[in-house]
Amino acid sequence: MENFTFFNPTKIEFGTGKEQLIGPHLAEHSIRKVLLCYGSERIKREGLFDVVSQSLAGKGIELVEFGGIVSNPVLSKVREGIALARAHQVDAILSVGGGSVLDSVKAIAAGVLYDGDVWDLFVGKARVESALPLFAILTLAATGSEMNPSAVVTNDETQEKFFISAAPLFPKVSIVNPALMQGVSRDYLVYSASDVIAHLIESYFTATVHPTLPSRLVESLINTVIETTEALLADPADYDARSQFAWAATLALNGLTYSGAAGFSYPNHAIEHSLSALFNVPHGAGLSVVVPAWMKWFRERNPAQFERFARNVFGVESGEQGIAALQAWYDKIGTPTCLSQLGIKETDLAAIVENVQKNVRIFGIAETYTPDVVMAVLKNAL
Amino acid sequence: MENFTFFNPTKIEFGTGKEQLIGPHLAEHSIRKVLLCYGSERIKREGLFDVVSQSLAGKGIELVEFGGIVSNPVLSKVREGIALARAHQVDAILSVGGGSVLDSVKAIAAGVLYDGDVWDLFVGKARVESALPLFAILTLAATGSEMNPSAVVTNDETQEKFFISAAPLFPKVSIVNPALMQGVSRDYLVYSASDVIAHLIESYFTATVHPTLPSRLVESLINTVIETTEALLADPADYDARSQFAWAATLALNGLTYSGAAGFSYPNHAIEHSLSALFNVPHGAGLSVVVPAWMKWFRERNPAQFERFARNVFGVESGEQGIAALQAWYDKIGTPTCLSQLGIKETDLAAIVENVQKNVRIFGIAETYTPDVVMAVLKNAL
Repeated sequence: MENFTFFNPTKIEFGTGKEQLIGPHLAEHSIRKVLLCYGSERIKREGLFDVVSQSLAGKGIELVEFGGIVSNPVLSKVREGIALARAHQVDAILSVGGGSVLDSVKAIAAGVLYDGDVWDLFVGKARVESALPLFAILTLAATGSEMNPSAVVTNDETQEKFFISAAPLFPKVSIVNPALMQGVSRDYLVYSASDVIAHLIESYFTATVHPTLPSRLVESLINTVIETTEALLADPADYDARSQFAWAATLALNGLTYSGAAGFSYPNHAIEHSLSALFNVPHGAGLSVVVPAWMKWFRERNPAQFERFARNVFGVESGEQGIAALQAWYDKIGTPTCLSQLGIKETDLAAIVENVQKNVRIFGIAETYTPDVVMAVLKNAL
Repeated sequence: MENFTFFNPTKIEFGTGKEQLIGPHLAEHSIRKVLLCYGSERIKREGLFDVVSQSLAGKGIELVEFGGIVSNPVLSKVREGIALARAHQVDAILSVGGGSVLDSVKAIAAGVLYDGDVWDLFVGKARVESALPLFAILTLAATGSEMNPSAVVTNDETQEKFFISAAPLFPKVSIVNPALMQGVSRDYLVYSASDVIAHLIESYFTATVHPTLPSRLVESLINTVIETTEALLADPADYDARSQFAWAATLALNGLTYSGAAGFSYPNHAIEHSLSALFNVPHGAGLSVVVPAWMKWFRERNPAQFERFARNVFGVESGEQGIAALQAWYDKIGTPTCLSQLGIKETDLAAIVENVQKNVRIFGIAETYTPDVVMAVLKNAL
């Protein structure tokens, strides 16, 4: 194994009813006033907002509402949140929603304490040195943001989807109640499955060193995602499947699965971020298109690991069969596997390749992922 | 999955040379004077002591030496450490050694800030409310103590081996350099393998709820321990095996493998602690005797999980075959599997059963583990 540092101080409160603990948790961190961020009004219709506001009121914590955050969250909205947080002098930010709300919250928490424009932190002009304490109540399991210090935001002026990652952005407490996820649409369930699998396979395949132990952990999590997605498609009320899916999603990107691995990168995310930035496709839908296409391009660069994947995830023999099995599984559950299903045409490819060049620089993989390579990957997805 | 809270704020610095970071890490926590606890003089002979003291000196941190901690660490030594820490007014405790030194350090760290006698904290007379910050440089991978808030100590007056567990006892930073473990004897390597496997199977078999995901994680770790132990017996200098073994040992008891499980207990530890307390046998050697004996007694209470274990760990079909395969593997690597190998005779059983009764009360399993049951388990180990 390669040298590594593992540090993950986020407290996870997992299970039914745990959202009722949000007031006590904020109080434990001496929070008096919080910016409560959310997406649609669904959390009000379904009663979650009331539970949260009552829990906060029970501890005398004031709340300032900030709704309307959309998926593929945008910089303009983050700036709005920063202004609101400053105007009300809140001392913490609370996310009630999925990964998009939480990523916006991370950007707001960092932006409030940064003197310049928050986008500086995304383009490397400045580092995230501090952030307001942030908390989360998760309503969609997919991004893993609830137990890591990273956030992805799209600059809606420049169509750049970039990320930040810094220790102050670990949520203090993340509440993961799988029962709150029961209403997730069929589409978003399968996009989420695709997102989690993408998180798991990036380091698994790309690492120059990927010891057996982390490989086993990755396979355990992928197999769990596959099984529980199928169970949830058959019965969305299956709490056991819902909860194992959610915990697998959290563990997929909390540092566990790549500790000891080395030389890995996130090419699928680098490419997909451009699909989301340019065409506003759901991240998971973009990933289920990019991943099999990328696997076909990459397979011969790490054949043993592709054979391992084929055997331990799908019980087939060759690397090629493993890729085909994953793509067939995506088709079966109904997440897109070709660009046309996203409404993207061959004539769009040049613009995507152009946009990806910024991402691969930020992800540190520009040398490998030249325009020609990205074009070759995208052509596999036509 | 059952509701759970996952919280583990220990920072792990894993890999070669990481012990050189101890000074900077202590400095980051504003430590000025530290009680450096260790076992034998081996750390001086092998140069580790010099590396540590130079790293501390580099940050102007004073050190007070406290050596001579033995395996199955004893209360009298803990009390000595507490007195020394108080006399020198240290502001942190540093463990340089294996689990026994680290567990002693946890007891010292808690005891320094507790007004009464430290044993009160072990027998439930008082709770651990606070502790001096504690740090670890690990030289033996086995107990998992480096990433959890628990400690086991033997009262050498009463022959009671009891534990404490409380959030203030999470190490702030644990340095795990597998290269420092290369000199571990063949015996202690196999005892360590037995200890790690015991940590993994307690919840796996006893839980009333053990979802597929944590079961998969447990199997991934057990398979890693089995493979890497064999590799290390063949070649003690195999760094890759050494490092995967060490990381598996850490993950085996850091909360990961039983998050979402419910209704589990530690009967093998409850029984083994009496063997260590009465006969001073190495913990892992005691466990490799108790575990197969207990499995034979327990198997019919959870047959499906025993079949799962047999299939996924040893590739055999029946629960009985799985137990036999584990016992045969223990025999093969050379860790004891019957009481006579520990020098314990049938005439000793009554005293062990008597001693175990205190442990099962502390472990909360006295109703199930009556004297008759404990005797039945022990007789399986004759």
